[in-house]
Amino acid sequence: MTYSDLNTPLRTIMTPGPVEVDPRVLRAMSTPVVGQFDPAFTKIMNEVMEMLRHIFQTKNKWAFPVDGTSRSGMEALLCSIIEPGDKILVPIFGRFGYLLTEICERHGAEVHTMECTWGDVFDPADVIKEIKRVHPKIVALVHGETSTGRLQPLEKIGAACREMNVLFTVDGVASIGGTDLKVDEWFIDGLVGGTQKCLSVPSGMAPITYNERIEEIITARKKVERGISTAEDRKQELERDHPIIRSNYLDLSMLQDYWSSRRLNHHTEATTMLYALREGLRIVLEEGLENRFNRHKFHENALVSGLEAMGLTLFGSPSCKLPTVTCVNIPEGVDGESVRQMLLQEFGIEIASSFGPLQGKIWRIGTMGYSCRKENILFTLGALEAVLIRHGVRVHTGRALQAALDSYSLIHREPVGQ
Amino acid sequence: MTYSDLNTPLRTIMTPGPVEVDPRVLRAMSTPVVGQFDPAFTKIMNEVMEMLRHIFQTKNKWAFPVDGTSRSGMEALLCSIIEPGDKILVPIFGRFGYLLTEICERHGAEVHTMECTWGDVFDPADVIKEIKRVHPKIVALVHGETSTGRLQPLEKIGAACREMNVLFTVDGVASIGGTDLKVDEWFIDGLVGGTQKCLSVPSGMAPITYNERIEEIITARKKVERGISTAEDRKQELERDHPIIRSNYLDLSMLQDYWSSRRLNHHTEATTMLYALREGLRIVLEEGLENRFNRHKFHENALVSGLEAMGLTLFGSPSCKLPTVTCVNIPEGVDGESVRQMLLQEFGIEIASSFGPLQGKIWRIGTMGYSCRKENILFTLGALEAVLIRHGVRVHTGRALQAALDSYSLIHREPVGQ
Repeated sequence: MTYSDLNTPLRTIMTPGPVEVDPRVLRAMSTPVVGQFDPAFTKIMNEVMEMLRHIFQTKNKWAFPVDGTSRSGMEALLCSIIEPGDKILVPIFGRFGYLLTEICERHGAEVHTMECTWGDVFDPADVIKEIKRVHPKIVALVHGETSTGRLQPLEKIGAACREMNVLFTVDGVASIGGTDLKVDEWFIDGLVGGTQKCLSVPSGMAPITYNERIEEIITARKKVERGISTAEDRKQELERDHPIIRSNYLDLSMLQDYWSSRRLNHHTEATTMLYALREGLRIVLEEGLENRFNRHKFHENALVSGLEAMGLTLFGSPSCKLPTVTCVNIPEGVDGESVRQMLLQEFGIEIASSFGPLQGKIWRIGTMGYSCRKENILFTLGALEAVLIRHGVRVHTGRALQAALDSYSLIHREPVGQ
Repeated sequence: MTYSDLNTPLRTIMTPGPVEVDPRVLRAMSTPVVGQFDPAFTKIMNEVMEMLRHIFQTKNKWAFPVDGTSRSGMEALLCSIIEPGDKILVPIFGRFGYLLTEICERHGAEVHTMECTWGDVFDPADVIKEIKRVHPKIVALVHGETSTGRLQPLEKIGAACREMNVLFTVDGVASIGGTDLKVDEWFIDGLVGGTQKCLSVPSGMAPITYNERIEEIITARKKVERGISTAEDRKQELERDHPIIRSNYLDLSMLQDYWSSRRLNHHTEATTMLYALREGLRIVLEEGLENRFNRHKFHENALVSGLEAMGLTLFGSPSCKLPTVTCVNIPEGVDGESVRQMLLQEFGIEIASSFGPLQGKIWRIGTMGYSCRKENILFTLGALEAVLIRHGVRVHTGRALQAALDSYSLIHREPVGQ
């Protein structure tokens, strides 16, 4: 039986993830592996923890990746703190709010939801009012909602949660590394990031962080695996009066032991993905968080100018736009999927559609991480204009690229890092 | 803030995993990524499914990786079929049997165990007797137990399970790609493999397969996520009379939809790890399963000859030795960890210790995948002799390498593939 060598096309990936991987990260991934308890490897584990603390803007002790895609991190965080019957409030403003409810329900929580129109975010005061009414143990909220391209302000909600002794857990998958996210300053107790979006590392890891408030709950539910537990571990278990965490793979108390100096074997850390994450984080830290956030906005501005100059309109409320995702209303009568297909087939450019009620209504263009580059923005605008013309859309021809170039020339020098 | 470039030593990795990654796999991992719904990528997904069916020796429709380390695959399989209160029989002959009990307990099963001495395996007749007594819904069993280096015969147990309408799920993490494992012929209903052992792909994916018997249970528990479900999905859910699967991330009914032609978005597939798995499987198929199994035995023989010629004794019953892991009794009075450390520090060779009751009693030397090469065996034997001499052990000096070379020269030509 023979299979051909891996032959993949080179794409311009302008979706909200997975996006183009930084070539430095790809190179790091071809590094020969070392064993999981090799001092050379545990040093890398510690470095990644330190780097993650900077990216998350936190002093938390615990900051490490879960070995799975982003939602594995979200489930690890939630299932480790949810005890059956716990009340959770999930304010929903897009698809990934629903995902949070799914996870919580499966782990036995009593889920309370509130919803706002897709394309908008919540007024923090409304969420706080609902927290006061429901008295949940946990508030679970999305920061950057990729399905609608919106950014939920978190700080006031975080402060209120802390004051009312409610745990505040945040899905920062689409925002981390692309727009500001201050874990400590915004009173976030537990946060999950993504690799395949603004960090420009392949999908397959979910960096998380959590503070002592969460650690305390996890520790109270701790169980060490029978095959490797000590007499002391088993004694502590007998004194445990909280229910065990409902997953072995996603049990943060065990992951914590593995990432601590105890190095108690849980899984075998995904060596090459960790090499990739380290390199991806290193690139972010070299660029500097503020520079990086500015760069994302800088290119977003050019993209938006181009799209509007072409005559397209943006979806959603401008006041809460997620800088890393731009949602475009599909013009009346146009088959959005046909446009996407032509972009991919003729230009090798990928943009995204959306989910549920927005399917067929909007396109989503990502400007994330390594994909967020001038040539990608310009190429996408030019290609989209051509494809729309082919689809009979009356666009203002020639204006998109001029507007984008104008936007780029408004600032004499591009921000550092790009 | 600056961090240095990734600087890792080149090791000779002779543990039972993670082992050295084939250079072709490392190279594939530096390939630029494409989007998750790009036809170029879904083609790769389909190819990997086809390749996995060959490796698993099955005609099952479902064969795909779970995006997580091996135990995530085991938990995905078990949590998707366990309904609270289900009886499960777990015969335990090492650490990873305990892991199976942990996973099952956390998902609400009523777990029945039977144990045999570590270093031995079960007489299938004894397991069958216990199945008849307990009447479980599921038997969960380890095939290759790396903690003790034993290989459990499965066929008779599988046949008995099928006859009694019991589900038979197997942990083939340490055996797949290194020793024979016939999913269909041995009546295995669900099986989980590992990447970082005999497939010589980095840790981070868990290839699994399961048949219609399991698919039927999964389908009866199916729930499509609210943010992406259709009216038809929601109608079917209302008719569901089985409890929902207790994990979102590890829910095989959702993974199945993502790996099917429906391509219903669940997670974002770990692109680069899938490239790696594809290349790793391609290498196995090029070598041929039988050649590959023979090669593993061929090098195991040389290693064992060398160890015994040195005067060391092997742990465990020879009749059920796992060909890919050789367990060596640590000589009386020797600090096993000190020997391991010196091997690593002076020679750059990593061998493993073991867990629980065997900690400090045995070393475990893996001969898996790309690590299973003549130069690695010879280097390890020579180094171990030197280190043992340094530790004051009276070994038969000079004999180990001669015995290994003799073993190699007994066969005129090495098997194809190495």
